[in-house]
Parts: sequence; structure tokens; C-alpha cells
Amino acid sequence: MEEKSQLQCKTYAADISSIKEAQNRIKPFVHRTPVLSSGQIDSISGRRLYFKCESFQKGGAFKFRGACNAIFSLEDSEAAKGVVTHSSGNHAAAVSLAAKLRGIPAHIVIPKNAPACKVENVRRYGGNVIWSEVTVQSREEVSAKVVEETGGVLIHPFNDGRIISGQGTISLELLEEFPHIDTIIVPISGGGLISGVTLAAKAVNPNIRILAAEPKGANDSAQSKAAGKIIKLPETKTIADGLRAFLGDLTWPVVRDLVDDVIVVDDKAIVEAMRMLYEILKIVVEPSGAIGLAAVLSKYFQENPAWKDCNHIGIIVSGGNIDLGVLWESFKN
Amino acid sequence: MEEKSQLQCKTYAADISSIKEAQNRIKPFVHRTPVLSSGQIDSISGRRLYFKCESFQKGGAFKFRGACNAIFSLEDSEAAKGVVTHSSGNHAAAVSLAAKLRGIPAHIVIPKNAPACKVENVRRYGGNVIWSEVTVQSREEVSAKVVEETGGVLIHPFNDGRIISGQGTISLELLEEFPHIDTIIVPISGGGLISGVTLAAKAVNPNIRILAAEPKGANDSAQSKAAGKIIKLPETKTIADGLRAFLGDLTWPVVRDLVDDVIVVDDKAIVEAMRMLYEILKIVVEPSGAIGLAAVLSKYFQENPAWKDCNHIGIIVSGGNIDLGVLWESFKN
Repeated sequence: MEEKSQLQCKTYAADISSIKEAQNRIKPFVHRTPVLSSGQIDSISGRRLYFKCESFQKGGAFKFRGACNAIFSLEDSEAAKGVVTHSSGNHAAAVSLAAKLRGIPAHIVIPKNAPACKVENVRRYGGNVIWSEVTVQSREEVSAKVVEETGGVLIHPFNDGRIISGQGTISLELLEEFPHIDTIIVPISGGGLISGVTLAAKAVNPNIRILAAEPKGANDSAQSKAAGKIIKLPETKTIADGLRAFLGDLTWPVVRDLVDDVIVVDDKAIVEAMRMLYEILKIVVEPSGAIGLAAVLSKYFQENPAWKDCNHIGIIVSGGNIDLGVLWESFKN
Repeated sequence: MEEKSQLQCKTYAADISSIKEAQNRIKPFVHRTPVLSSGQIDSISGRRLYFKCESFQKGGAFKFRGACNAIFSLEDSEAAKGVVTHSSGNHAAAVSLAAKLRGIPAHIVIPKNAPACKVENVRRYGGNVIWSEVTVQSREEVSAKVVEETGGVLIHPFNDGRIISGQGTISLELLEEFPHIDTIIVPISGGGLISGVTLAAKAVNPNIRILAAEPKGANDSAQSKAAGKIIKLPETKTIADGLRAFLGDLTWPVVRDLVDDVIVVDDKAIVEAMRMLYEILKIVVEPSGAIGLAAVLSKYFQENPAWKDCNHIGIIVSGGNIDLGVLWESFKN
């Protein structure tokens, strides 16, 4: 009830109506991704799990929803000079593909340490790759320069209402198909995905629980929730290359007010979850995409009385872009 | 038309009514598997492809459909002493799981060279593993002995009307969802899968084309079609461990009369297809399951004027049981 009134009284960067608009806008372009289940994984976790496989989304990640919504929201005059973004990979590929569909150029700033398969995706979709150093600062500086030179529109990876609205369409699909889901576990990084998922899900069902899953080596969101303000870390270290960003001023209010908890897991648990998804569910999932399963299997979640009655749990499998060699190496360690 | 009259006049081991019965019988137990598509793979193949992912079926392969139908068809008195089968893996796991659901024992004869993950699946589902030598003769001898000792019912992997009917349910799901599919490509081994798929699909749409996909190192079906009789090979050699069996007397008539062609591909093409399914579709597929994509990409198919107007092609991705290390090794070679 309290949450419902929060939703009604506060203004966030997206809401159920912007998310429904996004759904109509992107429907012709996105895959409606399947939801997989496994009796075996249910037995192991002690809950009924519904894996929403955004790893099967175009570009191999949920990012295409937001990118598509942002790019197809642009007026023709705005779109004419193309779009610019910086991203370690999945957002980059998503922007490239959405720009290609709209018929405009995409200039993509990528840090030098991005996984090869993600850079390959950008090139495959016709994105113009511009390298930066690995720091957030370098990425942002290079992007600003590209915007200046090209006159393109910057499409931020997460701190943007259109992006948040696009990602929120995941909840609409999931809860339409499985209205009895009582909890959704969502990977958290910059917060675009979890903001959209939360705003849509809590509008549909005010009692639904939203739990963020975050790697130990980049646990800025857990720290932010504890401190009551955005915390940025001097460095991050995790196998989940998609989960290294920090919250923005548009995503933080949603995380602060509406996300029920942040579950922190270590890289070992993430790898074990990737292995289970490979061996049992037969899907290719990158570390960031496996973290929701790792969270549900964690001692923190399993032993927390607050989550004891989370019985029907949607898990957002955010992406599947991982080089096979990297996957194999991670399993061997 | 000719095919329709063949369907009506001849009696095969299954028909549309036994397949619909099977569908009702197994519905509470099987997954309705998703159908995935990829714009990228469509561009490469020049056709619109619909991947029916039986790799997501329980036990990781289509085999659970037939096993479930066979085991739940048994009278209680027949079922009481359990079931026996011999299989290199996927059928074995399927029988173990279906027997477990029915609450009866499963005795599984497995050749010593079966992939570790497939043996692991049998054990996970509570099957009683009995080893045999790798030859078909040894498997059959050991099975006969186990039947004698236990009094269990032998569930043949493919040469059985109940198995064929169960596998046929795949076509019902696929064509219900995508009635405009004009061609289905199916891996061929003992012929249980392709017989069921063909009998159901041609009953629903007499004009649909059914193409078998077979590895070069085990091309007995292609040879059988050419010779007009069942050909068995002295030995087989292929990475597709699930496609080494020869046709039986119940499956051969369907292959002879109703399967439109057999497309033979080499192991290199199978590995390349596995790689595309991993990298682009993000699914884990064993060699036997990837052969349909290899077939559609083959020169034989692409350049054959007979298949020029096959535009909407269903591809049966038969299974996903492959050890990650084996997958990685196959990609490196």
C-alpha cells in the first residue's frame, strides 16, 4: 500500500503509461522472449523460477528494448545526424541495430577491454566503433567529443527515461504471461533495467517484490541503499562485465524507493549459476545474465525470513554475449 | 495429392489420431518448447527459419515425448516390473525421467563410449545404469538379458509406434503456431523422430516438404532411399553421437514413402552450425541438434532447384546435451 502511494505521488523518469507507449513503439522490432523453467533448478532452489530470457533478444541482450524506444522516439530532424553512445558492449550493439533499422548512423565509443564478441556485434550491425580508455571518465570525454563533431544525439545507456521505459516492457510481457509471479530478481548496474522493470511491475501488481542482484566486486548499489545516497566506487572488479556502472540521478530514486533489497553475490556464485544455465537450461548466458540465479541460490536469500514466501520468482536473464572460450575458462577455474 | 493418398491408403506405425492421443497423454509432463528465430541467421541462409528448440525439452532432448507416451501408455500390470532400454544417451535419460514420473524402475543399457553428460542425466533421473560394449549387437544382447532378469518392458528407442507418436507431437505444436511453414528439416538416425514429425505434418498439411538431415559418416538413410531398402553400415563415424542408429522396419516405410529427400552434411558443417547456434541464437545444441541448420546452409540444399521455394522452414533442434569442454574442443579444431 505504502509502495502504491509512493508510485502515485512521486514522479520518476518513466511510468506505466510511458512504458506502454514504449511497448507499442518497439513491438514491430523486438522479440517477445520466451520464459523457460526447469524442474531440476526449481528443486535446487526450492522455489518456482521463471527465466525471462532476454539473452534471446535481438543483439543478445535486453538493451535493444531501450535503445529501440529511444531511437524511434526521436523526431526526424533530431535523428538525421545519427546517434552516439558509450558502452562496454550490449547497449552499443543495441544502439547500432536500432539505428540501422531507423536508417541513421551510430557512433559507438567502446572501452578497450570490452569482450570481443560484443565489439563484433557492434560491427555486425554497422556501428562506427571509436575506442576509449577503460575509465568512465575517458568514455564520457570521448563521447562528448564525438557528439560535438557529428552533431549526433547522445543515447545514454541507462540514465534516460526513454531507455528506462523500453526496459520496462519486459515486466509487461512477463506478468501478462505469469500474473502469479510474486517476486522479480533483476541484475543491477546503472539501474536502467531495474528501474523500468520495477516501475512497470509495481504498477501492475503493487505487492510484487523487486530484488536487485549485484556482484560483490561492484556493490555500489547495495552501498548506496545503505547510505541513502548514490555511492560511486574508486574501482570495480567482477567477471560480470555488464554490471560495472554506477546509478544515475534518474535511476537512483527508483532503486532507493521501490527496490526491496539488493542481494550481493561473489563471482564464484555467478560462474556456478552460468554453469547450471548451460548444463540444465541449455542456454548461453553471460555472467551479468546469470546473477539472478546466483542471487536466488545465495545463503543471504535462502535464509532471509523476509523472502521466505517468495515462491514464484521471475528472473531476468539479461544477456547472452559471452565468448565460448571465456565461458570454458571460467568453468575450469 | 499423391502423398495424401499414400497417407490415407497405407498403414504406418502411427497416424494423426495416435499422435493427437499422445499429445493429450503427455501434455501434463512435457514442455511446450519455444520456437526461436534470428534475422541474422535468416540473412545467411536466405530463408526464414523457425528453430523448434527441443533442446529445452525435459532431459534436454525431444526423446522425452516418445518415452513419456510409451511409458504412460502401459497398463499398470505391464508397468509394474519397470522398463528397460538401450541408448547412447538421450532416450536413456528420457526413459529414466518418464519412469520416475510414473513411479516405476528404469534399467538402462548404455554403451561405454556415451558422452558423460548424457550418462549423468540418466543417473540424475534415477535410472539404473548397466554398461554394454559399443556395438549395437552388444547393446541388444545385454538388454535382452536385463529384460529376462527383471521382467521389465523393453522400450525401443525408435522402432515403436508409441515412440513415433510421441515425437510427432512436435509437428502439432510447430504448425499450430506457424501454419505457414512449408518445409521441415529433421535429423535422421533410427527414424523415430522423422517418422512422427512427418506423419503429423503431412496429415496437417499434405503439401509440406520433409527433408532429413544426416551426417556423412552415418549416411545409411540416404543410401537406403537410393537403394529402395534398408541399408546398414559396417561402421559409422561422426561427431553427431545421436545419429548413428539405422532405420527399423517401422520407420523405414515412412522414410521411403513420405520423406522428400535426405541432405547429407559433413562434420565440419555440423560444428559450424553449432557455433552459429551458440554465438547468434545463444542456445546450447549438441551436434545432432545442429544438423538441420547445417543442412539448410549446405550447397546441396541451397543450389537444388527443387528446394528453391522452401521459404518458411521449421528446423527441429533435437537436443542440447553436450559437455562444454567437448563443444569448445570441437570449435578449436
